[in-house]
Amino acid sequence: MSADRAARLAVALAERGLDQLIVGDLVRPGDSGPDAIANTRWLTGFTGTSALVVVGGEARVFITDFRYTERAEHEVDAVFERVTAASRLLPELASRLAGRVGYDDTATSVANLAKLQQTIEEAGSQVELVAASGLVETLRRAKDAEEQAKIAEAARITDDAYETVLAEGLAGRSEREVADRAEARIRELGAAPAFPAIVASGANGALPHAEPSARELRAGDLVVWDMGAILDGYCSDCTRTFAVGEPDAEARQAYELVLAAQLAALEAIGAGVGGQRADEVARAMIAEGGHGDDFGHGLGHGVGLEVHEAPRLGPRSEDVLAEGDAVTVEPGVYVAGRFGVRIEDLVIVDENGYRNLSSLPKDLRIVE
Amino acid sequence: MSADRAARLAVALAERGLDQLIVGDLVRPGDSGPDAIANTRWLTGFTGTSALVVVGGEARVFITDFRYTERAEHEVDAVFERVTAASRLLPELASRLAGRVGYDDTATSVANLAKLQQTIEEAGSQVELVAASGLVETLRRAKDAEEQAKIAEAARITDDAYETVLAEGLAGRSEREVADRAEARIRELGAAPAFPAIVASGANGALPHAEPSARELRAGDLVVWDMGAILDGYCSDCTRTFAVGEPDAEARQAYELVLAAQLAALEAIGAGVGGQRADEVARAMIAEGGHGDDFGHGLGHGVGLEVHEAPRLGPRSEDVLAEGDAVTVEPGVYVAGRFGVRIEDLVIVDENGYRNLSSLPKDLRIVE
Repeated sequence: MSADRAARLAVALAERGLDQLIVGDLVRPGDSGPDAIANTRWLTGFTGTSALVVVGGEARVFITDFRYTERAEHEVDAVFERVTAASRLLPELASRLAGRVGYDDTATSVANLAKLQQTIEEAGSQVELVAASGLVETLRRAKDAEEQAKIAEAARITDDAYETVLAEGLAGRSEREVADRAEARIRELGAAPAFPAIVASGANGALPHAEPSARELRAGDLVVWDMGAILDGYCSDCTRTFAVGEPDAEARQAYELVLAAQLAALEAIGAGVGGQRADEVARAMIAEGGHGDDFGHGLGHGVGLEVHEAPRLGPRSEDVLAEGDAVTVEPGVYVAGRFGVRIEDLVIVDENGYRNLSSLPKDLRIVE
Repeated sequence: MSADRAARLAVALAERGLDQLIVGDLVRPGDSGPDAIANTRWLTGFTGTSALVVVGGEARVFITDFRYTERAEHEVDAVFERVTAASRLLPELASRLAGRVGYDDTATSVANLAKLQQTIEEAGSQVELVAASGLVETLRRAKDAEEQAKIAEAARITDDAYETVLAEGLAGRSEREVADRAEARIRELGAAPAFPAIVASGANGALPHAEPSARELRAGDLVVWDMGAILDGYCSDCTRTFAVGEPDAEARQAYELVLAAQLAALEAIGAGVGGQRADEVARAMIAEGGHGDDFGHGLGHGVGLEVHEAPRLGPRSEDVLAEGDAVTVEPGVYVAGRFGVRIEDLVIVDENGYRNLSSLPKDLRIVE
């Protein structure tokens, strides 16, 4: 698997006129955050937070530090030469470079680029460093069968967490309690929350990125509830909006509008469709329904080793959907001071259009 | 508080010959990780993940995006002009800069520096960007009374989690179970784990950064157990090594050696003492005890809004301890294939030397 991935990357970088590509986080190499390791994990299998990889021509070099030597032996695909840096990663990296070498300028700090260049100059190497971002991210889009299975299982766990907490009732519980309980359920099922759950009720539902508060859910509320699980490195992402008791006519109308837009956007999803085009389907319908100014974000985003990754679905997206893309479809309407509605499914683009990984019903569910 | 912090920062940057300093994450501005927001949080009080700040002379500008406008109103100190960027943060930032402007080259991506420079050039502004890292980190070292109280409370919660799990017994439980239970207890107490707990038993204790495994704790094991809590943004960090049943003579001897080294290093802690010097006290004692090659990390590190921050205590440290520093003191001995021992306290340097925030006893504790 990784051998194949490295080979495909080698082709992609050669097409960009590069001899080699550095893959990895050059902001905090050796102490990268979980988000920063997606590229090295995808390419090599390594789950640690200290990794730099060089790919190009025949070169397949994986560099870590002494803390991870043993883990690298277990995890890193044998196509890679596994190297433990004597002290820091950068000098070891510099010694492996040759020719025209791409680096990810979005994931390299100014300080570390200067250090790398200095090390190269001191060694008298013939290396030209070239900004080159997005190559691995593009390859990561097409999820293979194993990746799809992991994402689907993370989605299943998320659905279970919704149903478990819903069965206990919502009225009288605080947003914070509901979020904590849902996250605990995700953990019980052997996964972890992919991001902090959003539970935003009543007027809070209209706030972008509300944190769950002490506000108690009560009759008449719509509740925007956005959460996901991460399992074996792969994420899911889902949003449902529930009603506590019967909502008023305006809220119900907005819900039906968002649902219709979500279903229409799903209908549009398929290989060859532009991310801009899919977004427009939902956006036009929401505008027609009188809420044109109330849908202030894009239609969706890719999901995989990161919760947000390529491709993007939105008004300015230049991405075109392809088989294997795992993307969210999540239109919303937010009326300040009143309520919010968002409905989000996670789907995988396939030869028939798409496969929906979110199994929760979408007709407005009225809970107590 | 924040007004005072901004004023002190303005003095520090003027001393470096700068007119202004940009504070914030210029790798993923608008979508920063929790680690990346420590400087903006300390300076302004803002807890969100989208913030850039300009300080210098009279300038006190806080920039966020529309998702955080309301939170900024609540959280950001009134000394700052609070600005919501029309779209992205960088153009808004560029419009606020003047003169010789420092930026954190360790937290700025090559791509974003280029974007910022291009924006400045297009606007025809007279701005010179200068690499300047570490200014806020240095000021963050001296914890005020409120920060000390938060760190102390996080340490107390960690101690409670140890005692709670120990009271349930260790023998027969897996490393993973112990770690999960301890993290759950930290959450029950209203905090969160500051980092994934390490529970490493028997030979696993000698592995650097072992992840808790399915290995069951059994008689004769030493168990290296490293964890911390984060409460209201502030972290704690503690390690204890316990024995399940009576350990063999070699393990007990190593334990006593590490404990003696830890107590000696604590004795050395105080304002004016070099981080290199404190490390050497413990290192010399461990070498004398015959384990000179088995202490493969530094003595300690600062703790605050980040689990690892300034100052450093280690063989190559150039830091000198000062009142208000919160630092760990954590020597260890790791014998490959056999066992590990690490004992870590979190202390605050004060006028009498230090105050120890870790209340757990350190004599070898034999549990079942």
